[in-house]
Amino acid sequence: MGNTFGHIFRLTTFGESHGPAIGGIIDGCPAGMTVDYELLEGDVARRRPGQSGLTTTRKEDDKVELLSGIFEGRTTGAPIAFMVRNINVRSGDYENLRELFRPSHADYTYTVKYGLRDHRGGGRASARETLARVVAGAFAKMALREQGIGIEAFTTRIGTVGIASGIAFESDKAAENPLHCPDSKAAAAMAEALTKAKADGDSLGAWVHCIVKGVPAGWGEPHFDKLQAMLASAMLSIPACKGFEYGSGFDISLPGSLANDAFYAENGRIRTRSNHSGGIQGGISNGEDICFNIAFKPIASISRPQETIGLDGRPASLIIKGRHDPCVLPRALPVVEAMAAIVLMDAGLMAKAIHL
Amino acid sequence: MGNTFGHIFRLTTFGESHGPAIGGIIDGCPAGMTVDYELLEGDVARRRPGQSGLTTTRKEDDKVELLSGIFEGRTTGAPIAFMVRNINVRSGDYENLRELFRPSHADYTYTVKYGLRDHRGGGRASARETLARVVAGAFAKMALREQGIGIEAFTTRIGTVGIASGIAFESDKAAENPLHCPDSKAAAAMAEALTKAKADGDSLGAWVHCIVKGVPAGWGEPHFDKLQAMLASAMLSIPACKGFEYGSGFDISLPGSLANDAFYAENGRIRTRSNHSGGIQGGISNGEDICFNIAFKPIASISRPQETIGLDGRPASLIIKGRHDPCVLPRALPVVEAMAAIVLMDAGLMAKAIHL
Amino acid sequence: MGNTFGHIFRLTTFGESHGPAIGGIIDGCPAGMTVDYELLEGDVARRRPGQSGLTTTRKEDDKVELLSGIFEGRTTGAPIAFMVRNINVRSGDYENLRELFRPSHADYTYTVKYGLRDHRGGGRASARETLARVVAGAFAKMALREQGIGIEAFTTRIGTVGIASGIAFESDKAAENPLHCPDSKAAAAMAEALTKAKADGDSLGAWVHCIVKGVPAGWGEPHFDKLQAMLASAMLSIPACKGFEYGSGFDISLPGSLANDAFYAENGRIRTRSNHSGGIQGGISNGEDICFNIAFKPIASISRPQETIGLDGRPASLIIKGRHDPCVLPRALPVVEAMAAIVLMDAGLMAKAIHL
Amino acid sequence: MGNTFGHIFRLTTFGESHGPAIGGIIDGCPAGMTVDYELLEGDVARRRPGQSGLTTTRKEDDKVELLSGIFEGRTTGAPIAFMVRNINVRSGDYENLRELFRPSHADYTYTVKYGLRDHRGGGRASARETLARVVAGAFAKMALREQGIGIEAFTTRIGTVGIASGIAFESDKAAENPLHCPDSKAAAAMAEALTKAKADGDSLGAWVHCIVKGVPAGWGEPHFDKLQAMLASAMLSIPACKGFEYGSGFDISLPGSLANDAFYAENGRIRTRSNHSGGIQGGISNGEDICFNIAFKPIASISRPQETIGLDGRPASLIIKGRHDPCVLPRALPVVEAMAAIVLMDAGLMAKAIHL
Repeated sequence: MGNTFGHIFRLTTFGESHGPAIGGIIDGCPAGMTVDYELLEGDVARRRPGQSGLTTTRKEDDKVELLSGIFEGRTTGAPIAFMVRNINVRSGDYENLRELFRPSHADYTYTVKYGLRDHRGGGRASARETLARVVAGAFAKMALREQGIGIEAFTTRIGTVGIASGIAFESDKAAENPLHCPDSKAAAAMAEALTKAKADGDSLGAWVHCIVKGVPAGWGEPHFDKLQAMLASAMLSIPACKGFEYGSGFDISLPGSLANDAFYAENGRIRTRSNHSGGIQGGISNGEDICFNIAFKPIASISRPQETIGLDGRPASLIIKGRHDPCVLPRALPVVEAMAAIVLMDAGLMAKAIHL
Repeated sequence: MGNTFGHIFRLTTFGESHGPAIGGIIDGCPAGMTVDYELLEGDVARRRPGQSGLTTTRKEDDKVELLSGIFEGRTTGAPIAFMVRNINVRSGDYENLRELFRPSHADYTYTVKYGLRDHRGGGRASARETLARVVAGAFAKMALREQGIGIEAFTTRIGTVGIASGIAFESDKAAENPLHCPDSKAAAAMAEALTKAKADGDSLGAWVHCIVKGVPAGWGEPHFDKLQAMLASAMLSIPACKGFEYGSGFDISLPGSLANDAFYAENGRIRTRSNHSGGIQGGISNGEDICFNIAFKPIASISRPQETIGLDGRPASLIIKGRHDPCVLPRALPVVEAMAAIVLMDAGLMAKAIHL
Repeated sequence: MGNTFGHIFRLTTFGESHGPAIGGIIDGCPAGMTVDYELLEGDVARRRPGQSGLTTTRKEDDKVELLSGIFEGRTTGAPIAFMVRNINVRSGDYENLRELFRPSHADYTYTVKYGLRDHRGGGRASARETLARVVAGAFAKMALREQGIGIEAFTTRIGTVGIASGIAFESDKAAENPLHCPDSKAAAAMAEALTKAKADGDSLGAWVHCIVKGVPAGWGEPHFDKLQAMLASAMLSIPACKGFEYGSGFDISLPGSLANDAFYAENGRIRTRSNHSGGIQGGISNGEDICFNIAFKPIASISRPQETIGLDGRPASLIIKGRHDPCVLPRALPVVEAMAAIVLMDAGLMAKAIHL
Repeated sequence: MGNTFGHIFRLTTFGESHGPAIGGIIDGCPAGMTVDYELLEGDVARRRPGQSGLTTTRKEDDKVELLSGIFEGRTTGAPIAFMVRNINVRSGDYENLRELFRPSHADYTYTVKYGLRDHRGGGRASARETLARVVAGAFAKMALREQGIGIEAFTTRIGTVGIASGIAFESDKAAENPLHCPDSKAAAAMAEALTKAKADGDSLGAWVHCIVKGVPAGWGEPHFDKLQAMLASAMLSIPACKGFEYGSGFDISLPGSLANDAFYAENGRIRTRSNHSGGIQGGISNGEDICFNIAFKPIASISRPQETIGLDGRPASLIIKGRHDPCVLPRALPVVEAMAAIVLMDAGLMAKAIHL
């Protein structure tokens, strides 16, 4: 269980890091939509390893094969299945992990839960699963774009290096550096920190800020499918994600009189003067930008020796081989955007089901 | 849609603040369990307003009537329906809100989404809905307790007053103050801040730390029903909740080599030396304490005049009458525990469905 | 589990025959709909026992109390909870059943599954649960009626007495007899058969034909939520229902060349010359009348002595006391209509969720 | 929507008749199960066209590729994805169908619902989709077999030729003829009828009887996920299926006093003397054989000229080319078994989730 996300726009994923393929099925994608292959491949490329000096050198072609649901370039309303063959896998790198639990990985918990596990590259728990999310997210983005909705994720912190306070989230500015960070100066320091971590055989955590523009008021289903609840669930389901906050989030320095978002009318449209609500009130979008932050822990695969336990319950020293990133960023950015796109598609379609 | 939570242990809630009743249906509660009415009423009482000087003076008897699913004091496996009549409602307090949108409330978004709304006391969006969660949570707690699982939520910050760093989370200590704060000194300062906010007609945000002890390794369903994803969804569905983090959460000051939780064996049981994972690895419980923090915004209902817009799109000044708390705490503590209990019950039952 | 039906328009029911109340929660009912209390009470009355000499004399006021989701006479989009108190219960009639399993009832299977059961009047397995379906169906009917969709169920067979072949399904004609049978002559014979069965302490099975008029082409979700699959599931979930067929159903006397429904155009609308498809092709409505038949077994509660087994595994003779109908008809007719209405509402709302 | 079946053991299918591939994802398959490739390939072979003179000559290799969820020959608890490439497709056969609606097919309804359709071989509505069900059913059968549960479907009627009344359902006997009919004499007449229908360019309907042996008492979730409701939904979701009945079904010739299944004790096990209940009481298995019948309409693709309408709304005469069976049997038998297996797996796993 647990491999399906969404109510109407639904993604089911499959695949292990070193199995035959990774992929998924999208159900509920609107019919008649022209497939934008460029958008799809662009997002897959952003997630691909090896696109900058900051990431692993594992080469993945990640050629997405679309298996169904498309006819003469358009979606048909039938489920869209897709897969990416796992090639360039070096399973031998993982042979020593068959008997050992890597710290802060899923090795131990999968073994307890299922009684066995595919130890190669993390098996099903591998972050390679996120490739399927990026593909599904691309279809959601295509549909959302037709409604004028855009989603963009930015790097705001790597380890102890954060962006300057008050920096604007400008796409052009962010596009200048590989981390898609809106603060160029901070971006340089982050890159430096990553290079150092990699040289140290270590890894760093990161923060992401994501903005969704153009969502009309009225999306989200109270009480349990509030927009923020769906977003939180989506984000926390991404490997290594440790926290989610939207709008003012964990910052509670302001009292209600200053934190409330006053309403005013702007050219006949009701807006709020501030956006501490992060674009969501009572679980439903209010027409303002939807803004949220998420936190990623440092990648658990580091090349330094670590203390652990084996399947036999005996202490062991562990050396993780293989090719690993020092940070989930920048590769996780399209994953965050994809999950946000899937949530919004789902919420948007649910909002249509309100009248016969 | 959106009023049901859970896969196997499922809660569906109903009711508006000033309608005939608030309640819900629990489906999937294990059969044969002796109902602990004391536990149930205790949690309802903790959520009830008026139990300390820090909360609203609205008197609610909140007498829970169990309508089904129980026979001769034991659960039968049939759905457990329950309700609480809404009495002592002063709907007249809200008459001026029929035409106005309260800032940072759900008034505007409900109106856009549904075309109409019950304006009395927030209608369906009222936090009074959480009463149903507390009742369902009590049944989940009863079943979890039989497995040695306990859940406890603590106040860790009110506005700008936080607990001292390094304070231990001791139940006895926390029980000494009405905020259930483990730091007595901070608790006194918090109470003072709340009293001042109330006098000012203002409100304050808050942080909660929740600990779940005794969960066996193996609960949680990757990839999308990871335990942290279910918890995040549950918490963000609570009115006024703005953020969720588990384990190390947003704190990414440590590199991977220090953030990883080394495994060791303790009396034949596999444990971790630190718990930055918050008791969850790869979406599955690992047997350590499950720990998470959540943030609540300041209550939006304040008695100070506020700028807003009316249904007619015209600017207006708003005075919110009625009786309101200056903070969701301490009343939200049993709500947090209840939602955690519901998630864990659901995850625990799913973990049983792994073999015929 | 298992007490919720539907995807978007969802009904969750609760209650036992002799517990405090029977009721349910409807989620996903469109907002802004004026509640037609007359329709609601009319359907509840049709299901009520005692309305003709053919049914049990148990008196039930069946006063439906609406607990939420309605404001100033209109639905708000919030869940609609409702309940009916169980009064006039004579639990003493059932005391001898505490230790015995009634043949062809759920007594034995509930005991095996749950380890205990509420033996009074069938407990949760009682057909009294269908009252909740009728209430939810009434709300679905209100919404469907606004789209010109009408649903009508007819009695077509009681025991060995069936309607004449080729009889037209005319509402006016059917309204002339309490069984709502389109064939007056057969209706008289059926009534006679029922009277005799009752006098014999016995019971009879029945067939129902249901017609849904006015459904636009395009409702139904292939492959697994085909309209006929949803209808079949809905009907087979009704207590005592043993079979479902739609269109030509089990009649396979015609070869494909005669069974196929030829298309033709009528005033610009595409229609079929015959309707062996029962209004559904490929799981999706085609605009023709949706027609289906269902079968109900004889009611298992008969007053004749029966052979059975007790909780202790020892043979016993059983006398069922209490007040029982000799047939589920005519009281089951509004239940069939209600379930059909719920399925169509659900399918209709899903069909709206096809585009942003 | 609509392409997922099941609650815990869940199948999601994808694929069109003439697209790149047909396949699916199974979620919730128990971990640690040794994959029986022979069982899998055997069922796929039984569904494959061309295995007897009675079926289409389209050659399909139907080589099933397992893409995930299996490690060293055993299931891991991760989703099992699989696919079969569509080869030997002659899409040109269908070019004339681009503009025409085939009678009693899904061409018209898909076009209305989705605005476009893949016209080649029925596209998504093709019965080729059932291949995915057979694969998933094979995995369910493997798990059920370990519990001593077996499923077998028999042909009982083709057109106007039915089995003799009172014939026993013996596997050995049925294995002697390609229709898997327990009555050899009838089987010969059925084969003759099929041969004649094929020569006539026509098709015939069919009935199937399915028996599930070995299900323990206690499976099934009242009220809406009653075992018979899940089975009915599963069967009616199979293309061309028009009806479902279990136990005594539509036969209501007996009164309650004869139709009730008296309980008795056999070696300490509670059994029933007759099985009009079809192994299910109150929606829950009672330990007796689960028996049901289903009806299939004649295949809509016939080679005789037919009257129809084109996309332009103008009358047209239609000749369907391509290779088609004269009846869904015997190829549909493994599909019926597969859907029954999926339902029982799902019900069995749900029955485990009843206690922590």
